Amino acid sequence: MTNWTAIDETVKRWIQEAGSLIRASFHHALSIQSKSNPNDLVTNMDKETERFFIDNIRKHYPDHFILGEEGQGDNVQSLDGVVWIIDPIDGTINFVHQQRNFAISIGIYENGKGVLGYIYDVVNGELYHARHGEGAWMNDVPLEKLKPVPVKKAIIGISSTWLVSNRHFDQKKLVSLAKDVRGTRSYGSAALELAYVASGRLSAYITMRNAPWDIAGGKIIVEEAGGYVSTLDGSELNMLTVNPVLACAPGLHEQIVNDYLK
Amino acid sequence: MTNWTAIDETVKRWIQEAGSLIRASFHHALSIQSKSNPNDLVTNMDKETERFFIDNIRKHYPDHFILGEEGQGDNVQSLDGVVWIIDPIDGTINFVHQQRNFAISIGIYENGKGVLGYIYDVVNGELYHARHGEGAWMNDVPLEKLKPVPVKKAIIGISSTWLVSNRHFDQKKLVSLAKDVRGTRSYGSAALELAYVASGRLSAYITMRNAPWDIAGGKIIVEEAGGYVSTLDGSELNMLTVNPVLACAPGLHEQIVNDYLK
Repeated sequence: MTNWTAIDETVKRWIQEAGSLIRASFHHALSIQSKSNPNDLVTNMDKETERFFIDNIRKHYPDHFILGEEGQGDNVQSLDGVVWIIDPIDGTINFVHQQRNFAISIGIYENGKGVLGYIYDVVNGELYHARHGEGAWMNDVPLEKLKPVPVKKAIIGISSTWLVSNRHFDQKKLVSLAKDVRGTRSYGSAALELAYVASGRLSAYITMRNAPWDIAGGKIIVEEAGGYVSTLDGSELNMLTVNPVLACAPGLHEQIVNDYLK
Repeated sequence: MTNWTAIDETVKRWIQEAGSLIRASFHHALSIQSKSNPNDLVTNMDKETERFFIDNIRKHYPDHFILGEEGQGDNVQSLDGVVWIIDPIDGTINFVHQQRNFAISIGIYENGKGVLGYIYDVVNGELYHARHGEGAWMNDVPLEKLKPVPVKKAIIGISSTWLVSNRHFDQKKLVSLAKDVRGTRSYGSAALELAYVASGRLSAYITMRNAPWDIAGGKIIVEEAGGYVSTLDGSELNMLTVNPVLACAPGLHEQIVNDYLK
C-alpha cells in the first residue's frame, strides 16, 4: 500500500529545496541580458534540477518510474505502477530572459490516474498543489471551487502561435474565440497558466501542443479545483504523448468545445 | 525653478501610500471569483486612487496640471507647464480577475518633455522609476543599459487583438513579426509591459492603441534605460491623444520599423 501522505510531504520538501537551488543560480536579479550563452545556462539548470529529483526518487522510491523532460529518467512506455512526470523548469525561455514566470511541475500517477500534482512558482514562492479527491491549495490556502464562467467574461491563456496560421490547427476557430472573450493573456509557461486556471486568474488555457511534463501536475490541480482538462474535443489526455490541451473553468469547457472547437 | 528632487521624493511616498491602500482592498488573496460586480469594484478603486493623487497634487503643487484616466483631473489641452499624466490602475481587468499584474503609472512632463516616470507593480512591491538624464531604477537597483537585440532572439509583448483582423492596422505585418521572434507574451498591462522592456524581460512592446496615461511613465523609464518609444513608423508620440506604440531595445527598434511595420 503506497503511503501517499508521506510521499506528499517528501515531494514538498524536495520542491522547496530545488527552488532554493534555482534561486541561488540568479547572481543578480536584473542582470538578465548579460548571459553570454542563454541556451547553456538553461540546459545546465534544467538538467541539474531534474537530476536532483531523479536521484532522490531513485533512492527513496526505487520501484517508481520517472518520465522527465530532460530525458534522464526512465524510458516510460506505459503508465502501469507509480510514474512521476517531471518538468524541472517549465518556461525555460522566461527563466533565461526574465528570471521569473517559470515553474517546477510534477505529477505523480498510479496506474494512469493522477494522485498528486505540484506547480511551484519559484520566484514568487507559490506552491500550487493537489491530491486526488482531497482538493487543491496554494501554499496553505485552499483554492476555492471554480465557478462557471461564460465566454464573454473569460480571460484565456493562449499563445499567439495558435492564432496565426500554423500547421497544427485551423486558427480561424481560435481567432473567433479570441475575439469573443473579455481578454487573452500569454505567459509562456503551461504550468503557470494551469495554476492560473486553478486559482481563477485565467478562465481557460488552450494550446495545440503540450508534452506530458507540461501538464501532468497542472491537470490534477485544475481538476481538484473543479475545472476540466481535456483534448480540444473533450477527450481524455494521453499522458505518454504530446496533446492539444483545453483547461477550463466549468461551463466554459462545454461552451468552448461545442461552439468553437468542434 | 522647479525642485524636481523634492517632487521625486514626494511622488515616491505617495505611490507607496496608494499601493498600501490598494493592497488593503484585497480582502483575501484567492477570493478572486467572488466579486459580485467586478466593474463597480474597478471603478471605485481606480477613482479613489486617482482622487488620492489629485488631492495631494492640488494641495502641494497648485500650479501643476493633471491628466488622469478617470477624468477627475484637468481638461488638459496642451502640455505647457508641468503636467502629471496618471493611470491610477493600469491593467484594470487583471486587477479584478487576478489581483496582480496591474500597476500605478505616472509621468510628469514639463513643456512636453518627460522629466519623471514611475511604474509601480503594487503586488510585487517593484517600483520602476526614472529621471530624465539621470537613469532608471527598479527600487534602489539601477537598470542596466539595454543592449541591442536581434528580432530572432526577441521576446515581444503584444496582445492577440493586434494579430487577428482588426480595424486599426493590417495585422499581416504583425503576424509576420510574431512568427519571426523567439516568443510573444501578453500580460494585459501596458505599464507593466513597458517596465518589462526597460528591465530587459521583454525586448519590445507593441500596441495599436495606448492612451497617454498608459505610456507617460513608461516612456521616460524605457528611454532612460537606453530603449526607444515611438509610433509604429518611428515618429514622436503625442501625449495628448491615443497613439500606436512601439517600445524597444536599441537595434530592434530600427529593424522592426524598417523590416516589418513600414
